[in-house]
Amino acid sequence: MIDLRSDTVTRPTPEMRSAIAAAEVGDDVFGEDPTVADLETETADLLGKEAAVFVPSGHMGNQIAVYVHTRSGAEIWAPQQAHILGNEQGAASVLSRVLPRTFDSPDGVPPADVLHRWATGTEDIHRARPSLLCMENTLTGRVVPLEEQRRATAFAHEHGLRTHLDGARLWNAAVALDQEPAAVAAGFDTVSVCFSKGLGAPVGSALAGDAATIAQARRARKLLGGAMRQVGVLAAGARHALHQHRSRLVQDHDRAERLARFVTDNTQLSAVARTNMVLVTTPADSAQQLVAALETQGVRAVALGSDLVRLVLHLDIDDAKLDAATAGLHAAAKEI
Amino acid sequence: MIDLRSDTVTRPTPEMRSAIAAAEVGDDVFGEDPTVADLETETADLLGKEAAVFVPSGHMGNQIAVYVHTRSGAEIWAPQQAHILGNEQGAASVLSRVLPRTFDSPDGVPPADVLHRWATGTEDIHRARPSLLCMENTLTGRVVPLEEQRRATAFAHEHGLRTHLDGARLWNAAVALDQEPAAVAAGFDTVSVCFSKGLGAPVGSALAGDAATIAQARRARKLLGGAMRQVGVLAAGARHALHQHRSRLVQDHDRAERLARFVTDNTQLSAVARTNMVLVTTPADSAQQLVAALETQGVRAVALGSDLVRLVLHLDIDDAKLDAATAGLHAAAKEI
Amino acid sequence: MIDLRSDTVTRPTPEMRSAIAAAEVGDDVFGEDPTVADLETETADLLGKEAAVFVPSGHMGNQIAVYVHTRSGAEIWAPQQAHILGNEQGAASVLSRVLPRTFDSPDGVPPADVLHRWATGTEDIHRARPSLLCMENTLTGRVVPLEEQRRATAFAHEHGLRTHLDGARLWNAAVALDQEPAAVAAGFDTVSVCFSKGLGAPVGSALAGDAATIAQARRARKLLGGAMRQVGVLAAGARHALHQHRSRLVQDHDRAERLARFVTDNTQLSAVARTNMVLVTTPADSAQQLVAALETQGVRAVALGSDLVRLVLHLDIDDAKLDAATAGLHAAAKEI
Amino acid sequence: MIDLRSDTVTRPTPEMRSAIAAAEVGDDVFGEDPTVADLETETADLLGKEAAVFVPSGHMGNQIAVYVHTRSGAEIWAPQQAHILGNEQGAASVLSRVLPRTFDSPDGVPPADVLHRWATGTEDIHRARPSLLCMENTLTGRVVPLEEQRRATAFAHEHGLRTHLDGARLWNAAVALDQEPAAVAAGFDTVSVCFSKGLGAPVGSALAGDAATIAQARRARKLLGGAMRQVGVLAAGARHALHQHRSRLVQDHDRAERLARFVTDNTQLSAVARTNMVLVTTPADSAQQLVAALETQGVRAVALGSDLVRLVLHLDIDDAKLDAATAGLHAAAKEI
Repeated sequence: MIDLRSDTVTRPTPEMRSAIAAAEVGDDVFGEDPTVADLETETADLLGKEAAVFVPSGHMGNQIAVYVHTRSGAEIWAPQQAHILGNEQGAASVLSRVLPRTFDSPDGVPPADVLHRWATGTEDIHRARPSLLCMENTLTGRVVPLEEQRRATAFAHEHGLRTHLDGARLWNAAVALDQEPAAVAAGFDTVSVCFSKGLGAPVGSALAGDAATIAQARRARKLLGGAMRQVGVLAAGARHALHQHRSRLVQDHDRAERLARFVTDNTQLSAVARTNMVLVTTPADSAQQLVAALETQGVRAVALGSDLVRLVLHLDIDDAKLDAATAGLHAAAKEI
Repeated sequence: MIDLRSDTVTRPTPEMRSAIAAAEVGDDVFGEDPTVADLETETADLLGKEAAVFVPSGHMGNQIAVYVHTRSGAEIWAPQQAHILGNEQGAASVLSRVLPRTFDSPDGVPPADVLHRWATGTEDIHRARPSLLCMENTLTGRVVPLEEQRRATAFAHEHGLRTHLDGARLWNAAVALDQEPAAVAAGFDTVSVCFSKGLGAPVGSALAGDAATIAQARRARKLLGGAMRQVGVLAAGARHALHQHRSRLVQDHDRAERLARFVTDNTQLSAVARTNMVLVTTPADSAQQLVAALETQGVRAVALGSDLVRLVLHLDIDDAKLDAATAGLHAAAKEI
Repeated sequence: MIDLRSDTVTRPTPEMRSAIAAAEVGDDVFGEDPTVADLETETADLLGKEAAVFVPSGHMGNQIAVYVHTRSGAEIWAPQQAHILGNEQGAASVLSRVLPRTFDSPDGVPPADVLHRWATGTEDIHRARPSLLCMENTLTGRVVPLEEQRRATAFAHEHGLRTHLDGARLWNAAVALDQEPAAVAAGFDTVSVCFSKGLGAPVGSALAGDAATIAQARRARKLLGGAMRQVGVLAAGARHALHQHRSRLVQDHDRAERLARFVTDNTQLSAVARTNMVLVTTPADSAQQLVAALETQGVRAVALGSDLVRLVLHLDIDDAKLDAATAGLHAAAKEI
Repeated sequence: MIDLRSDTVTRPTPEMRSAIAAAEVGDDVFGEDPTVADLETETADLLGKEAAVFVPSGHMGNQIAVYVHTRSGAEIWAPQQAHILGNEQGAASVLSRVLPRTFDSPDGVPPADVLHRWATGTEDIHRARPSLLCMENTLTGRVVPLEEQRRATAFAHEHGLRTHLDGARLWNAAVALDQEPAAVAAGFDTVSVCFSKGLGAPVGSALAGDAATIAQARRARKLLGGAMRQVGVLAAGARHALHQHRSRLVQDHDRAERLARFVTDNTQLSAVARTNMVLVTTPADSAQQLVAALETQGVRAVALGSDLVRLVLHLDIDDAKLDAATAGLHAAAKEI
């Protein structure tokens, strides 16, 4: 099977396994794991922040950010499609007891008039207290323009809100924009990043920000049960991924581009590439049908809606597998 | 001043004050206040439910409903404009830790295709658990058609969700539809109603439903600090309102109609009447200006947005006051 | 029946009913009820605080205090018997998500060595963050010495904790100590008091503190559903109680003293008076039996444990009723 | 340095590192990691339960148990010293909003009369709802007798409570009792165990119970951010530990016994061994002094109170290190 469901499915390379096996470790609950400490420092540096904390998942990094930036009864602003709301099991409500307010924009940028309206009447006793603006870059593969990010985060800060970036795929955004990761993270009080997904580490994410906020985040990580012991074994994989697999993301983007072009040119379907993702639009209500047809061709994908199928390029997909996937998609497209 | 900001501003009539002063009371935390017990029974009967519990506010009635129908991490579905979300300080997140999912429909009716989509994939571990459908009738004065309510609540029940109606102004809906209150409440597991607002009692609301749910609600009322001692003094006012002021709501609707027609016919503004509310559309960004101009004419109203002003008819507004308000609006309209 | 279960069972006097019926009222959610405003000012003055907010119950006053003084994950310190923990349905955990740490002392005073120990190691990541010291005066009728309160609150403030006094029966403590209420409230950031209970109003409590904290409390009251409309009808009763019934508490204490002495002198049981409460110690496991025997004599009381019965003196118990209760207790004591 | 602070400080052995490097992995969020699945099955079997779920920490395993067994406003019963309350940052309040009720017994067994009292009056509206009994075995190294566990869990079940065992060191209890792990876990609806601590894996714990409860737990793990991707790299270490290091715990117990005897026989201090822990009682207020003196001797330990020092034997302490630690303790004891 060629697994294009997500870039989370990658398996560690032999070199990564060696790095994991050789990891120097200590009890990280006591702050004594040197590999974790190194990874945290490097990550903070890359993102242009003072500090970072390693966490077991992007979900936890995001939810810790909400927890430390708000208190119960806060209002948080986020794109309607944001992972932090719709794909984290309602954790923002459960863990932080905040009320979401969402804007509907395809590129994840809050419209200026919406921001203006939401920043009015914030003292009204009937209303939750606006406290945090969340953005996501990339958002379903789409790169959010940096000048738009800056405009939105500046507005938020002027109005007393804090800002968080869900950067699970920030590395892809940086490569696509040909910018340093720190440029993508600029303007945000905190940013979460993943070492699994595009970078291919087996497990691990980080939350970066100023030192005081990250100290609170470290405490919140313990609260949630995310503090681990000799977790340098995971951090070693993550460091290897950060060092070896960041620049190769451009290959995933290139392959996504080729796959999308093939679909549009050679099938009745249309497709668009967004960084390492290909989004295929199917006839109404046939997304599941295409997924099933792909499965019989040995290709796995996921339906994002009734007429949208997602295929994700990643570390385990080389040109040979891309060719096989392309052929499989070609055949599957004929069946719907 | 003629106060048309809300129907919550009414003052008790002399007859109501007498009823309050004469109230037979007991310690309601021990379940020994006969006036409260009578009010609860009557309210349950009127709404066609097994039981009801008296609460200090509509806000508390709504939030108790969310609390008893869900557990942490539930998803609740409601109109984007729902009071239970946007006007209750984020209490659904704070008290019940639920994640809202909102539909955008002017009349508060969830579109069938949206319901269908939301009822799909409910076991996904990334998603909060769909648990409760909330509706509101009237919604910003607008009556929700009963057949639409029935369709939506039936769908919800088929898919394992419970249903709650925010009936703060259900009495107005019933009068407007020329239906019994029970008909408006039909299909909902719980319904909250207010004795203040249109009915004119100084304080008090109720939550009605089946006996087991209301027993839980009674417990939740205590949790929130809403259990009171000789609260028959409030219940007596509420009972008086229920007996004496329900049928007169038709007068408020009639006056609203007259006021709206006057505005449309005699000013450059347009207005629409919805039950006891008049919604005046102003030129862009001049809602606050109209409110200010009205204030200098001795009329109080509220801006609901940048180009929308609301005026509410109620118990304290008779024909003479309506005439004065009409004149004030006429004059104010010329200034913007 | 002579009801000595609690001082919460009192019914409003004719004068109080008149005050309620004549109350000048407004919409208090808009901050426009003059009777409520007057009551809040008077209460704050009496307690030596900047501001106060009217709430529907002592439970809500207490829980709002916890909510505004802490954030999720805080540790609160309180007597093991504290109402705020054991008698408020776990609301401190539900509403404020704080972890209780209790000290066991009969008079509600935290021992110095316990305070010292608890104030050590507060930065430990395994531990909740010490944030609030709660005390209660009177505690099960017992007056907490003011110098002990001062010592404990000073210690708490030195260590960065805030302080709250559950003063549901603070009026009794003040009368018993022959001190102004402000002296009993001194040293606490907030204090809750009840107008029902000893003072005999049908409904109502208040939370007092500095202006900024009470502004937050007002917001929290709305969150919980405790904001009410023309609630001056309740505030009028509370004001009447505050003006007319405070000094008479000494009569309740005197009657309690007489009843306790009678029991000890004339029955096989022993009893002690604490302000307006009489605590009767029964033979092992016979508390419920005494309560039942009293019931057949026309006297109602409550068992606090397997060998402890509580009788409470209050506004509705005059000397004639005291005599009848004494006789009933005499007879009942013979049956166990 | 000889690190006896905790059994959490062990570093993976070369064999364990090899197992980790060779782990067969998959995306465990999709349920596709075979090593995790094997570990979960083995763990469930060992504990005599239907199912188990791998979690990043014992803290998370415990807190998930509280979350799935209760709903907001529940009362949980636990020993005063329980890790789940005092050492998990108040997470039971934050994540599950439950009210703790603690019993004070040195061996972690709830006294029968306390259980009886707590099971009375459970419907009282003033009280949180008794829902869960938590026990811990071993508790600060002490083995809880199995017949006592059975009595307590049977009582809890009869009264409608669920039961959870914090078995972070259950493996030690089983070895000390010469019983199968399943015997120690018997009577509990859920049990958490750690693969780090005594077993020496770098990271990982599990929660076991019936299949339906563990399905809920798996969902809750995602909510908290504890679901990880190719986490077989951790599970491989945990499996290795389970297979290779369980039976050797008897050596730790034996060494603890020898160290405790040495202290009692050869210093002015007294010491007691409890499974793999040695608890040294120091003169008043000199626990920190002993810890400091040990540090200068190259031995690390922790103070549990003002006159109690804990030393923990584990995988990284062989006889040579024990001898060195013994000598260090001998020297340090002379300095206090």
